[in-house]
Amino acid sequence: MRAWTVWFTGLSGSGKTTLARNLAAWLEAASIDHEVLDGDDMRADICRDLGFTKEDRNENVRRIGYIANVLNRHNIVAIVAAISPYREARDQVRTRIPNFVEVHVDCPLAVVMARDAKGLYKRALSGEIKNVTGISDPYEPPVTPELYLNSAEQSPEEELTVLLARLKELGLLSGKPSLKGKGA
Amino acid sequence: MRAWTVWFTGLSGSGKTTLARNLAAWLEAASIDHEVLDGDDMRADICRDLGFTKEDRNENVRRIGYIANVLNRHNIVAIVAAISPYREARDQVRTRIPNFVEVHVDCPLAVVMARDAKGLYKRALSGEIKNVTGISDPYEPPVTPELYLNSAEQSPEEELTVLLARLKELGLLSGKPSLKGKGA
Repeated sequence: MRAWTVWFTGLSGSGKTTLARNLAAWLEAASIDHEVLDGDDMRADICRDLGFTKEDRNENVRRIGYIANVLNRHNIVAIVAAISPYREARDQVRTRIPNFVEVHVDCPLAVVMARDAKGLYKRALSGEIKNVTGISDPYEPPVTPELYLNSAEQSPEEELTVLLARLKELGLLSGKPSLKGKGA
Repeated sequence: MRAWTVWFTGLSGSGKTTLARNLAAWLEAASIDHEVLDGDDMRADICRDLGFTKEDRNENVRRIGYIANVLNRHNIVAIVAAISPYREARDQVRTRIPNFVEVHVDCPLAVVMARDAKGLYKRALSGEIKNVTGISDPYEPPVTPELYLNSAEQSPEEELTVLLARLKELGLLSGKPSLKGKGA
């Protein structure tokens, strides 16, 4: 079976990166080849020219989708953690990735604002930064995601358990583990 | 051993894409997992925002290098065919890719202009398009590439033979073939 892409979408601070890392650790232990594509990392590198307009955010999603697709074609699972606030861009990525698992990592704004690990919301409220999803920019939740999680009500461990069950249900964890090549 | 990146650099029409396809076919027959990253294809997709200024050309090279590096980390050989005219950008890619094989596909301007498969040089001479490498834009040849080929003097088949010999010499084709995973 062709590999798959899990796409975590949600507000900044909702727990996407944590989930991505936990899933990666699980896959690592299962010897399933994978790559984490984290929005923040991408913005520091292959998307460093992009800002936070709708157009730029969608281009960011498009590029991550491009890389995820290349990886999937080589039987590498792609784990994406990116706010990806616009439905249109996510749906476009879905059309090019055969096994696309959209996971809405929901979390009330009040909760992510209280966490505010990056100090993002504080700076948004003070007017220091603009274009913050949930404050000054919209977030369009998925209508029919493959999985809905609420990280205000579930622990990361519980979320991972639910996610793994869903991946099995989708038939994506039922095959034999991917063989990692050990030398070209 | 970690996979490697072969980076074909040279003027438009010098035969980079042909070489890339021939190498890909050889690797396919040897069951060595690989991906061709062709400059023209990249410009139609993940680099579609880029033009032909020095800055944009270097960003193009940088993004291709990013993807090649990700692929290499997963033991997938990357085959890059891109004009990549500026030494600085190629050298920068070299620093991030452990097994980087720079191949200068040289060909006299007169020869590529006579071929002119894409009609590029004709349009450059008529002034219809600007920023054409070799005409209005510089091409900075590699100083010490891993391999120098002259496609005015060698056939694509001869070039592939020389390239494979060089890859073996570099120890990059001596390991056992990469195992392709068959299911996640």
